[in-house]
Amino acid sequence: MKISARNVLKGKVKTIVAGAVNSEVVVELPGGAVITSIITKASVDSLQLAEGKEVYAVIKASNVMIAVD
Amino acid sequence: MKISARNVLKGKVKTIVAGAVNSEVVVELPGGAVITSIITKASVDSLQLAEGKEVYAVIKASNVMIAVD
Amino acid sequence: MKISARNVLKGKVKTIVAGAVNSEVVVELPGGAVITSIITKASVDSLQLAEGKEVYAVIKASNVMIAVD
Amino acid sequence: MKISARNVLKGKVKTIVAGAVNSEVVVELPGGAVITSIITKASVDSLQLAEGKEVYAVIKASNVMIAVD
Amino acid sequence: MKISARNVLKGKVKTIVAGAVNSEVVVELPGGAVITSIITKASVDSLQLAEGKEVYAVIKASNVMIAVD
Amino acid sequence: MKISARNVLKGKVKTIVAGAVNSEVVVELPGGAVITSIITKASVDSLQLAEGKEVYAVIKASNVMIAVD
Repeated sequence: MKISARNVLKGKVKTIVAGAVNSEVVVELPGGAVITSIITKASVDSLQLAEGKEVYAVIKASNVMIAVD
Repeated sequence: MKISARNVLKGKVKTIVAGAVNSEVVVELPGGAVITSIITKASVDSLQLAEGKEVYAVIKASNVMIAVD
Repeated sequence: MKISARNVLKGKVKTIVAGAVNSEVVVELPGGAVITSIITKASVDSLQLAEGKEVYAVIKASNVMIAVD
Repeated sequence: MKISARNVLKGKVKTIVAGAVNSEVVVELPGGAVITSIITKASVDSLQLAEGKEVYAVIKASNVMIAVD
Repeated sequence: MKISARNVLKGKVKTIVAGAVNSEVVVELPGGAVITSIITKASVDSLQLAEGKEVYAVIKASNVMIAVD
Repeated sequence: MKISARNVLKGKVKTIVAGAVNSEVVVELPGGAVITSIITKASVDSLQLAEGKEVYAVIKASNVMIAVD
């Protein structure tokens, strides 16, 4: 499946914190930067996410803001 | 200003494409990866964005999805 | 690629309206209902979207609201 | 109230899973497809949502992505 | 229709800028503050929005960030 | 830091409800209106949010919908 979302960043799951409904999944990119994601706990189970697993962080361009110092 | 958005990635503006209402701003990260953002044309003007300018791509964690192969 | 977004609805592209930066893509579901999407023009080109093409409308659960009469 | 969100799909609440802050509400559409939503627990209470209740799933067009096989 | 979105702010349309696909609608709140919205041009037409019209700005709580100085 | 998000509303934290992953933060604006936000619990801690603290509610324009009666 190829998706319209413009940002697809490859990395590895670093940590997962599970709540009742949502879970926080931290993805480490190759350079060491991390991307934090909130997805449903059901998706964590469905995708069989676990620490160390290779994943993609996927972000729709309209959800990216720009800031300057 | 410090923001609750968990993802703040430093980079440089690579390209800007302006529409009547929205503009597409592509940010190049240090490692060469790019992040594409859609923000209003008014914000591009207000932040005085231009190619080469140092900026941050800012993303709320609830807007990040995870995908696997 | 399998994605964490909980809502993946199969349909066919009904219409595409292109702007300078964003395009509006209307997807018709099997039952005749339509889903309207705004994605970048670059994604319309990259996915080679055209009327009649089989596609999926993909929606993160945190972006779905509930209303009652 | 009439809203700018382009996608308003009528269905019935199938299941509700409550967390401390957010709840997951699954809506079944007439054809049997389901739409999963994450809203606050306070909204579930305020709208008096319960299994079987007729509701609408409401989605802003800019939050819909398109994918192809 | 009553919606799960937690933030519904009453105001008046101050300005509308139309693009090919999206329009920017600025809403003035009673105290003089303004809220800027990007919705589709089709919705501006469908809701018959015009300067001076009484409207509500509607925001899902998961789309609100918090910042501090 | 100056951000592209068009809506930055100054107020004070009125209440915080913490979940395992997300927290609900209610901000009271000067006129008495309230804005409800869902952010991660980690951000509540990181920004040292507490009742009475001066904060900004920040909202990207593409996440604001318009409704009419």
